[in-house]
This record gives sequence, C-alpha cells and structure tokens, in this order.
Amino acid sequence: MLLEAVYHRPKLNWSFAYDEKTVALRLRAKRGDLDGVEAFYGDKFEPFEKMKSAAMICSLSDELFDYWEVSVRPEYRRLAYAFRLLSGKKEIWFSERGFSAERPLEHFGMFEFPFLHASEVFRPPAWVKDAVFYQIFPERFANGDKSNDPENVQPWGDKPEWFNYFGGDLQGVLDHLDHLSELGVNAIYFTPLFQAQTNHKYDTEDYLRVDSHFGDNALLKRLVEECHKRDIRVMLDAVFNHAGGTFAPFLDVKEKGAESKYADWFHVRSFPLDKVDGVPTYDAFAFEQHMPKLNTANREVQEYLLGVARYWIEEVGIDGWRLDVANEVDHEFWRKFRRVVKAVKPEVYILGEMFHDAMMWLQGDQFDATMNYPFTGTVLDFFARGKLDARGFADSLSRQLASYPRQVNEAMFNLLDSHDTPRLLTICEGDVRLMRLAVVFQLTFMGAPCIYYGDEVGMTGGGDPDCRRCMVWDPAEQDRELFEFYRGAIALRHRHAALRTGTFRFLLAKEGEGRLAYERADEKDRFVILMNRNKKPASFELEIGAGEWLDALTGEPGAAVSSRHGMLELELPAYGYLVLQSHG
Amino acid sequence: MLLEAVYHRPKLNWSFAYDEKTVALRLRAKRGDLDGVEAFYGDKFEPFEKMKSAAMICSLSDELFDYWEVSVRPEYRRLAYAFRLLSGKKEIWFSERGFSAERPLEHFGMFEFPFLHASEVFRPPAWVKDAVFYQIFPERFANGDKSNDPENVQPWGDKPEWFNYFGGDLQGVLDHLDHLSELGVNAIYFTPLFQAQTNHKYDTEDYLRVDSHFGDNALLKRLVEECHKRDIRVMLDAVFNHAGGTFAPFLDVKEKGAESKYADWFHVRSFPLDKVDGVPTYDAFAFEQHMPKLNTANREVQEYLLGVARYWIEEVGIDGWRLDVANEVDHEFWRKFRRVVKAVKPEVYILGEMFHDAMMWLQGDQFDATMNYPFTGTVLDFFARGKLDARGFADSLSRQLASYPRQVNEAMFNLLDSHDTPRLLTICEGDVRLMRLAVVFQLTFMGAPCIYYGDEVGMTGGGDPDCRRCMVWDPAEQDRELFEFYRGAIALRHRHAALRTGTFRFLLAKEGEGRLAYERADEKDRFVILMNRNKKPASFELEIGAGEWLDALTGEPGAAVSSRHGMLELELPAYGYLVLQSHG
Repeated sequence: MLLEAVYHRPKLNWSFAYDEKTVALRLRAKRGDLDGVEAFYGDKFEPFEKMKSAAMICSLSDELFDYWEVSVRPEYRRLAYAFRLLSGKKEIWFSERGFSAERPLEHFGMFEFPFLHASEVFRPPAWVKDAVFYQIFPERFANGDKSNDPENVQPWGDKPEWFNYFGGDLQGVLDHLDHLSELGVNAIYFTPLFQAQTNHKYDTEDYLRVDSHFGDNALLKRLVEECHKRDIRVMLDAVFNHAGGTFAPFLDVKEKGAESKYADWFHVRSFPLDKVDGVPTYDAFAFEQHMPKLNTANREVQEYLLGVARYWIEEVGIDGWRLDVANEVDHEFWRKFRRVVKAVKPEVYILGEMFHDAMMWLQGDQFDATMNYPFTGTVLDFFARGKLDARGFADSLSRQLASYPRQVNEAMFNLLDSHDTPRLLTICEGDVRLMRLAVVFQLTFMGAPCIYYGDEVGMTGGGDPDCRRCMVWDPAEQDRELFEFYRGAIALRHRHAALRTGTFRFLLAKEGEGRLAYERADEKDRFVILMNRNKKPASFELEIGAGEWLDALTGEPGAAVSSRHGMLELELPAYGYLVLQSHG
Repeated sequence: MLLEAVYHRPKLNWSFAYDEKTVALRLRAKRGDLDGVEAFYGDKFEPFEKMKSAAMICSLSDELFDYWEVSVRPEYRRLAYAFRLLSGKKEIWFSERGFSAERPLEHFGMFEFPFLHASEVFRPPAWVKDAVFYQIFPERFANGDKSNDPENVQPWGDKPEWFNYFGGDLQGVLDHLDHLSELGVNAIYFTPLFQAQTNHKYDTEDYLRVDSHFGDNALLKRLVEECHKRDIRVMLDAVFNHAGGTFAPFLDVKEKGAESKYADWFHVRSFPLDKVDGVPTYDAFAFEQHMPKLNTANREVQEYLLGVARYWIEEVGIDGWRLDVANEVDHEFWRKFRRVVKAVKPEVYILGEMFHDAMMWLQGDQFDATMNYPFTGTVLDFFARGKLDARGFADSLSRQLASYPRQVNEAMFNLLDSHDTPRLLTICEGDVRLMRLAVVFQLTFMGAPCIYYGDEVGMTGGGDPDCRRCMVWDPAEQDRELFEFYRGAIALRHRHAALRTGTFRFLLAKEGEGRLAYERADEKDRFVILMNRNKKPASFELEIGAGEWLDALTGEPGAAVSSRHGMLELELPAYGYLVLQSHG
C-alpha cells in the first residue's frame, strides 16, 4: 500500500453533512492500490465496543488516485472515525494520528466530525438542481424598443466590435420569452443590466438603476414577473469587485482626492488618481483604470453593496446573483452577502465567478456554486478539441467531482461557452455532431447546465467581441434541426430526476479511445449513456445487467439494444450517441 | 518523483497571508524525494514573462513527508503560482491542473491566491505570543475567605473527591498574586468561575454571576484590575456547548415541556425531559443529563450567550475566553462570537478546546488558537513516557507545525497537563529530571506555554479528581529548587523573542536515540538547545557555525562549549539539557 497517496482531512470535500442525518466520508488512495476500504465509526461518548464498520465504495478515479466513499448516520450526531485499508491479506489502519498496523483502541486520536448541526447542512436552493439556464447578453439578444437605442446604433446583425451597440434591450427579451419556453429552459442568467458606459455593462455607474438603453427598473420588474409566470427564474450579474469609472463615489475621489468622503471606498495607493506606466495608482480589475476595485472591508461600502443585493430581490424579485470576479473579494464580505440575501429570500442562488478550485468558497457560508470552468475545459478538450481521450476525460471530471461535496456538484453552473469565450460550435470547428455530443453530456450530467443565447440555433463566433453577435431571429437563418435537438435533450433532462441528481459513474473510458459510457441512476431510474467520439463507427460491449432498454430521447426501444444476457452490444455511428433507459 | 505524495491546495495551511504583504506557500512531498522545489509566481494580469521564481526550503519533515515553504510578496496582491519539483536532473511542474513535464504557458490553470486582503490577514492577539499562562482551578488554589466556604468544606490538603469542596476562592488568588509574579507568568487561565452546582463549575447555573463560593462579580473585577497592574492577563472559561442542569431556562423546559418558551433553547428529542436507558431524551455533553446541550442555532440563545461574552469583557475587563467543548458548537455561532468579542476588545484571545485537527476553526474567522493537545501528547510521549524516540518526536511535532499557518502555531496554547489529566510530574513517574526536560522544551518552543497550578512546586496527582489537589502553600512542602528552575526558564523565555517567535528547526533527532537538538533564531539571536533524554551521559557533535556560545540560562559560557571550527562538541549528563545562545 502506498501510504503517501492516502489522504483524508475532516470537512470540506472529505467529510461533509449531506442532510440532517447523513455524513459522507471520502478517502483518497493510489489508483488501483487498495482492494477495499472500511470506515470504522461511532459516537465518541459511547462505549468503544459500539463502534461500527461500513464498506466504502470506489466510485471515482483520476490519473493518480481512487476516491472511496461511504455515507454514515451517526445516531447522536457526533462522529469519531478511522479507516481500515485493505490490500490482499494486508490491512493498515488510518486515523488522525497516522497509520498503524493496529486497530484504534479508543476514540481519542481518531478523525472527528464533531457534531452534525442541522443549521450547518449546506443546502443550495433546491430549484437549481432542476434548472436549465439560458445566458443572455442583453445588448445583443433582441431590440424590442427602438426608442431607447444608444446613439449610432448599428444595424442588427452587423459585426460586433468592442465599443459598438445594436440596441438590444429588456423589451426584446420580453418579446421573445416564447422562444425560451419552447426551448425548455427555466432560468435566465443576464450579464449586467445596470447603468454603465460600455456595451457589456461590467463598469457599473449606478447599481440601483437599469441601464437606460435596456429599459428601466419597472420594466425589469415586469420581465421578472412574466418569467415567473412561465416558471422561469432570473439571475442577475453583481459586479461588486469593482465599480465603473463613472460611479459617483469614484468621480468624487477623482475630484477631491484624499479629502473625498469616499476616499476609503477604493484601494488607493497614491493620490491623485492617475495611471503611471500602465498601472493605475489604485487597485483595479486587472489594470483597467475604468474599473476601480471597491474596498469591501469598508463598512459603508458593505452597507451600500448589501443594500443593492437586497434591493433587486425585494423590489424586483430576482432569484439569483452571479458574482463577478468573486474570488478577488474577501470571504467575510461574501459571508455577510449570504446572510443578507438568504434572510430576504432563502432560495436565491449565489453563484461565484471563479476559474479555479473553489472549495474555500463552497462550504455553505458563502456561495451556492461557482461557474464550472474546469468542467467546461474538460468537456471541450474531449468532445470539441479532441485533446483528451476518454480516460483523460474521465480522470479529469472525476477529480473535479471528488474535489467538492455532493450537494455542490449538484448545484454547479455547467457552461460550455459564454460572452467571454468563443462559441461552442466555433470551438467544434463548425461540426454540429461534436457539439451535440458535448451538449448531451452537459444535459445528462449533474449540475445546472447553461446554454449561451443563440447556440441552440447554430450561432458561431470567436473570442470576445465575436462571441457577442446579435441573436439570429430569422428562422431561415436558424438551424432549426439543432434547435429541435436542444429541445429534446432539455426535455429529457426535465423528465428524469436521475439525470439531474442521480449517482454518476463511468462505465467505459479507456486510454487512447473515443468511446465513452456512463451511468446515471436513482432509486427510480437507471440510464446508460453511450457516446462515440470517433470519426468511424464503434462497437460497444458492456455488462449492464439484464432487462429491456429504451432509447430515452425517442422513447423507442434502441435499435440494436439487447441485454438479455446482461450484455449490451451495439454499434454507434461516427460521433453517435445513445441515451438508454432501463425499462423493467 | 513520487507524484502521489505531492500535495498542495490553496489556503488553510498550504498558502496563507502572514502579513499584509506576504503570502507563505507550502508544498508537501515524499520525504527525501526531492532535491529542490521552486515556486513560480506572479500577478495573473501582468504579462506572463514577468513571472518569477523563488527557491523553497524544506524546514519540516515527518515520517512520510517533507514540507517545503517559501514566502512571496505579490506586488498587486494577486497571486497565481505553480511549483517546479526537482530531483536529480528531472523536473516536473505542478499546478492546479496537475503534473506536467512542461512549464505552464499561461496564468490560467495555475494555483491561485486570488487577492491578499489586509482585512483577512489572520492576526491572533500579539500579546499571546509573549504570554506564559498559569492555569488555576479555583476551588483548589487558595481559600482566602472562609465566610464564603461551601458547607462541609474539607480541611485544606485532604484527598480530593469528585464531589467534595475545599473552599478555594478568588480572594485566595488575590492573596497569592505575588507567587505568580515571582514565578514570572503573565496570564491566568481560570477554569469556570460562574455559579454552578459542582466543584468544577462546568455545569453553569448563572452565566452572569461569579459563584458565591468564589466571591462575587465585584471581587472578580478587582482581581482582574490587580492582575492588570502586574501585567497579568486573565482568561475565563466559557462553557457554551451546554448549560448546567439548574440553568433557569432548562428548569423551565423540565417543568413545562414543549410549552416552555425555552423549549427551542435545547436539542430535545422527546418530551418530557428524561433519561432512558442511560441516554437523556435531549442532546447533552456526552450523555450527561445535568449538562444539556444548548441550541446555538437559536437566535435567542445566540443573543444570550453573546451578551455573556460581552458582559465579562466590558464589565470586568477580561482578556481571553477559553471555549469548552468548542468543536461541538456550530461554526456560524463561533463566527458571530468572534465578531462580537473582537468588536468590544480586539485583543481578547479566543481559545478553543479541541482534541483533534483544528484547521477548520483556525482560519481567522473563529478562534485564535486551540488547546494544543497534540503537542501535549508528543512532548509527553518523548520526554515523560519514553514511547517515542527523538525521530518520532520530531516527526510528530513537525507534522503538527506543518498542519497550521505560522501565526496559529505562534498563538497555540501549549499545555503539558491540566485539571483533566494526571499531573506532569506524575506522568514522569516522579522523575523531576524528565519533567525539567519537558518544561524546557515547552518554554523554548513557539506557542504560549501554560503551567498547571502547583506543578512549579512539585505537586503530583493522577487523573481527575486526583490532579485537582489543594495547592501546597507551605514552603517546607514545596520543591523550591523546582520553583527556581521554572522561574529561570520562564525568565529566559521572556528575555528572548527568538524563543517565542523565532524560526524553529530540528538539528538532531535520530531514530532510536534520546539525543535532541534544535534551533530557535530570529534576526537578533540564535539559540541551540540540546537535550539528553537518556539515562546515561551522551556526547553531541554538531555543526553549528563558528562563534562563541553562552549558557543562556546561567549567562555563563557553556562549560565544554567550543565551536571555533564551527563544530560543537560536548557531553550532557543523563537527562541533561543546555540552552546555548550565540554570542558574537
């Protein structure tokens, strides 16, 4: 046994309460090194003889490691535990004190999950597990009101530039809610809507006012109401790391320097505010002088921003806040943010923008989830870019799943592209077959999928600003077949809880291969999803248990599906996929 | 290179801000596996060519692992980083994406310490690094006022039993402050002082009143004032996990059941309150029916307890709260506790009672430190019980140091015994020589040492209740030589900052040996401490650099100390020790 590979440290993703009675325990070991692991656990104040054992299951593996897991239910909510590692006839015990050939003889020195507090069970809003998001970049979605257009507005469909405008607005969204309902999405993520100087609005001028080119606060309120009537939830973008260069307090500091009553609202290194050798004399987003960083340790700034967070929930009824550059704001501010937001409306989804490991923000005291860019990268590298083989794909995704508690994985915001990246179809070099594989995976995986506006009708576009083209509304220019595909895949996800919150496990993911198979299952249903990321047909032979299997997308029995002897044998065409549902 | 052994995950003990400009990075690798590690770091918004490298140092090793560390100063407070692992001619790069033969080519995918917020730098109160605590169990320290004695008080010095009383009180402490000043301690830790039914007072009846057998609130206030005049700080015991069986809200629930307005102040599983088969029908400390667990998720309970925390700071001026059974109370309560306490008096020390890995409580949002029982166990196993050899001792202590940020280690509460354990001299089986070795180590190590009342005059005693004997005040019965030893060792610690906050490193700690050498150093001073935990004399030969060395305890040049050629050669008698200070 390679003891150096064995890892466990209580809390975070290694031991966590999943509900008021259940604690999940995880242990990491070298891949393939152990034949079994048992959790040895009990209440530390009960007699030691009452300790119990539970076999752990290895459900995830990455390049180097296996991840073993089990859920236990501590009767008095206190948990002391150790692990028994098994390999052949050898056994080693692992507790907080380290490794030992001997079983622990007392509670003292074991790992502890000291007390399962109901108040500490991390429960992201339940609706998120069932959500399919649709991301709208409002300036480019639809121009529903010409009267509020910016000056020099460009003809709809012209080439997007960093600084040009096309007149998209909230009325445009209102006008097209049928499109969203038809597609089947049930949540919208809007990039910023508040008054700002740019077309993307990430440089907020007034946090309490809808940008006049988009409409006004009353219109947003109406839009949210209309969405709610359709069971569509609405998430806005909170740009709290930095303000815009025209934010009044910043202008005041610009004018009055250290004398300004807002001087401490920002992180000023030296007055007057200036830019020297390309670097502002104050902290900013990146080195962007028009995006001065807000001092979220300042109590007035906190009160102001928390007031903003509260306002849009109370006055307009929004259901989520997406937090821009969330990792560069201090944890304590986000803790306050969570308390304020959840006190007003417990079901508000708090989603942080983070590009890296986010565990420290996802313990239940800050965010509900993060934008799952690691997921994005892995999915694109396998399906779109072909940089990963099936094994590499499974390794990478398993590693991500193992790095968070289960409830976090279920609430993750799984995007494949956005206003900051090239569009999915463009990354797929225009090959709709690859795109479909990626989307089927996204929609049959745990976490809330998000579709970037227009992907569903075949829009393309490279990096910013090209990914921010005007939405194509002319049906003749839309890929309606692709739209129907999206509609079907989204409906499939909505029909089956197992695809949203069931267990996940890879069934086939070998080195050097493009064949992939995985399972989603809950108490009610079992799905086996097969994918062929090869330019040639590929045959599958999988032990999946006896029974009938339906093609879940069509409802028809799968053409070549026969598992009467427990073995599934079939061939998928190049870039083909099949979602099979166990039936009886 | 054994990649499975390599570990790093941002934050906690792996990357942390030590001050407003410095981030410490740590990496774990298999012991002896790497020849070097470099941190490759920079600002993620600067051009990638501006990334820098810094060599890491391996200053701690345990049985399986080496711990490499370096401190870096990110100019714009944002930090992206990766590690370059070196072994012979091989190199491997380690970033958040995993291992690679190639150097990262972009910031994206590296580890991140996204922003160093001044407000998030974890700073335990500065005085704690310089404190030497003295623990007083008030019922047994001194009886200064016979008029407040309990009924049936026993003659001072009789055998302590679980339920008997000797009349110790606060006046007794006041009367003996000279003893503390003479000893040189500058902080007192009192076990509970509030009204309760037992002699130990861990079953609080009234959180706002000093127990009538100890005195009253006014007397405690006077005592704190007198202590402060002598530069002695005072820490009280907060028993907030559970109340006592006579706590008024609990009595109300006992009487009125679910109808009581305090019904939700506790965790009641079923009414009426009862004990069935040895288990109370409500959560309790352990299964102790007279110690009902408080529901700290209840807002009224929170307000009540936070009011208590505030009261004793504001009204009486205490300097610290020791939190009983701290790990079984929810994190959110402790976060609120910290905010309230630090708002009243930022320098209050918040010390949690925890017997296991406490990292999740020591991120700056909850406790300042914990009672360092892992330290206790390791020191006793080597010096007192002889269960560990020098290598095992160094391994265990290094692992502990590596598991927390530096500022936590500096503020840890390092005890060798307490009212819950046998006394140090008894664990040493009466051998004062072993006791002295343990105490010299405790007083020359980082973290605040605590001396249990009476140890300094040679008191003995087994487990509770025997460790709670009456303080011996008759000089004829005191070991005055031992007292002088303590006085000298404490004074030594006070004289030299290097012994409190200097770097720590083992110089000699071999398998199967009792010889130990380590270094404490800061910019001003350098100490080498030698110990011989053998029943025979032992010779030391250590490369410690040229220069003169003084015996720091006596101020005299060490008898056999000569390091003119950089080599220290000397012999220590059985159980001998020597604290050497570099001099010129």
